[in-house]
Amino acid sequence: MPLMKSWVASANSAETPFPLNNLPYGVFSTEDSDPRCGVAIGDMILDCAAAEEAGLIELSDEPVFDVPFWNEVMELGAEAWDALRARLIQLLADGSPEQAATAPLLVPMADATLHLPLLVSEYTDFYAGKNHAFNVGSMFRGPENALPPNWLHIPIGYNGRASSIVVSGTDVRRPWGQLKGPNDEAPRFAPCARFDLELEMGAIVGRASDGPITVAEADANIFGYVLLNDWSARDIQAWEYQPLGPFQSKATATTISPWIVTKAALEPFRTNTPAREKDLLPHLRDCGPMLYDIDLSVTLAPKGKPATTLTRTNYSAMYYSAAQQLAHHTTSGCPMNVGDLLGSGTISGETKESRGSLLELSWGGKEPVTLDSGETRSFLDDGDTLTLHGAAKGDGYQIGFGDCTGTILPALTDPYAR
Amino acid sequence: MPLMKSWVASANSAETPFPLNNLPYGVFSTEDSDPRCGVAIGDMILDCAAAEEAGLIELSDEPVFDVPFWNEVMELGAEAWDALRARLIQLLADGSPEQAATAPLLVPMADATLHLPLLVSEYTDFYAGKNHAFNVGSMFRGPENALPPNWLHIPIGYNGRASSIVVSGTDVRRPWGQLKGPNDEAPRFAPCARFDLELEMGAIVGRASDGPITVAEADANIFGYVLLNDWSARDIQAWEYQPLGPFQSKATATTISPWIVTKAALEPFRTNTPAREKDLLPHLRDCGPMLYDIDLSVTLAPKGKPATTLTRTNYSAMYYSAAQQLAHHTTSGCPMNVGDLLGSGTISGETKESRGSLLELSWGGKEPVTLDSGETRSFLDDGDTLTLHGAAKGDGYQIGFGDCTGTILPALTDPYAR
Repeated sequence: MPLMKSWVASANSAETPFPLNNLPYGVFSTEDSDPRCGVAIGDMILDCAAAEEAGLIELSDEPVFDVPFWNEVMELGAEAWDALRARLIQLLADGSPEQAATAPLLVPMADATLHLPLLVSEYTDFYAGKNHAFNVGSMFRGPENALPPNWLHIPIGYNGRASSIVVSGTDVRRPWGQLKGPNDEAPRFAPCARFDLELEMGAIVGRASDGPITVAEADANIFGYVLLNDWSARDIQAWEYQPLGPFQSKATATTISPWIVTKAALEPFRTNTPAREKDLLPHLRDCGPMLYDIDLSVTLAPKGKPATTLTRTNYSAMYYSAAQQLAHHTTSGCPMNVGDLLGSGTISGETKESRGSLLELSWGGKEPVTLDSGETRSFLDDGDTLTLHGAAKGDGYQIGFGDCTGTILPALTDPYAR
Repeated sequence: MPLMKSWVASANSAETPFPLNNLPYGVFSTEDSDPRCGVAIGDMILDCAAAEEAGLIELSDEPVFDVPFWNEVMELGAEAWDALRARLIQLLADGSPEQAATAPLLVPMADATLHLPLLVSEYTDFYAGKNHAFNVGSMFRGPENALPPNWLHIPIGYNGRASSIVVSGTDVRRPWGQLKGPNDEAPRFAPCARFDLELEMGAIVGRASDGPITVAEADANIFGYVLLNDWSARDIQAWEYQPLGPFQSKATATTISPWIVTKAALEPFRTNTPAREKDLLPHLRDCGPMLYDIDLSVTLAPKGKPATTLTRTNYSAMYYSAAQQLAHHTTSGCPMNVGDLLGSGTISGETKESRGSLLELSWGGKEPVTLDSGETRSFLDDGDTLTLHGAAKGDGYQIGFGDCTGTILPALTDPYAR
């Protein structure tokens, strides 16, 4: 599919992350307006609440856009999702008869503050990148035992903490936690010394289910995707995670990009999961191309210094798709709700340069990464700004996500001082 | 403290779970009324929404009781919690000048349907009973390695699934899941064959926090307690839980009792945590008696047959209090919200007769339990009705929770049939 032309000039460049082909959904505010639903188009945001009030968009008898989340639109169901996208394309396409009515409802993105685009209902984080699982497993258990026996049969995941989800641009405070090195006699309570990123994609559940659903049903229930950084305190994790999994090591913050890129916008970029080393059981098998060809990268900028690219990889490197994760999530009858967020797991490619965490890039701290400034990093320093970038590359256009960024603040001197 | 006398006659018996000393909070509906907040007193429920409308209770400028959850009352804060309890005691105490105005607002409990008493924000399940952890660890790793190295230093917990919380009386459908026995060549997808209960208490967070809080602050932030049955699919759990913890094995359902027993009602029953085998780090240390002396038991009734008591134990058998769990939960900066629910972990006493799960009672299925009917159980059968009972025993009165019960429905023949 080629670039779709819009009368919004900035949307027609090959460089904009937000051409008419994309139309991602966010929540924005300005000096004059409270947080509300908007759609990115070039370097502008279409104020959906204003468009609804003006009668240009009519999705439901009740207004659904004058709220600081997209959950109400999701609740309307897939037909409404399709109708909204079709209507937005009508309004914003080159030659639209409604250009004159729509143009005043555009807000420059530069004047807007972006907020979390949804109310996150519950958050689940998976471990579905095979290279990542192999790398981490090799470090902890040796390469011969790297992959747990269940790994090729189910997408391993654990429940995370929805309250910790923040939008891109939110500073992240280095956490305290209980730590115990392998040679320490006793644990101590101290600031995390091995704070890390995890490069992930997040899938947003747009339709509730109450019982097991198939992979095809799960795919249909996904509303869209975001970039996701699962900040991880490796030293807290090492001490706490046996036997019941990560807990406080993953609860400080998880940052998502501000725009929900819809499944419809990503449709041309569908790609197959990799060849299966062991056949999946029927209820988890692919029902078509279910991953997406999305280029991903991570940059690290020390305070006041230029950014270095830490890694470049692609979402298609995953072993399990979000639809397979969601299907597995329902096998026990677990009810899923609108606004549930599923982290893909860290996306690492096969090469060293494509690893999705500092844990892997520095091989547990043994091979520090050298930045362009000459500094080295095994894990994150205070003041570091980490940014995830993502784009699906089309014919003369790209589908971008907007940056997923956060700056590390130093740990509190005394976490209990009031 | 002796029994407090009420003009509601049924509240003055030593046998009622709901004397004036208790006043637990629930949500009820009748043929004539939608779900709303109510307070149990003897065999009656005081309709708090009606009392608010009549001007007998005034907690806030806005009505807070004519909703199907107690979250709005919790949001008002601890002073309002105290004021409400004081006012309810005024209204319902023997000799109350407002008896005549209040009496018409009582609804017989027998005519009411009980609902979930709160909107569960997020759910965390702990593993803080030492006897349980030791028993399970012994079965899986032998008694010498039973307790993980971190166990005596932090209350181990994992995030559960809030969407799976149901109120007492809700039937529980036996789940399907991926299973693989130690001698199976490959996993298969089949109904769970080792479905189990876990006898727990649940603590309800009534005040939000955004950063680390002390144990004393955590104790102050707890609104009340419920009984909690963490239904567990042991065969699904065994295959999935390494390396990231329980997931689908715990996501079918978790049942809670219908009445939130307030911290204030339980105050006379505070008791110390057991002696510490290793000193806790300062931020997790007790700051007074923080467990409660609550007698607990579990009964199992096969379909159409009388119930057998499976176990009798006490909440004071826990190693960590809910306040310590909540404090630990915030160490990383994890934001906590009103309506968060914390499961205590399985409450097993030291003797065989006081174990809180069939996994322990039947020692992994090796020593089936014999019921009064002569049948045996290693795990739960379809049609079994499981009931948790709990009461703090005072001087001529008791503080009860109401039953926490559920009946096992057979697994679906084909979970994907529509």
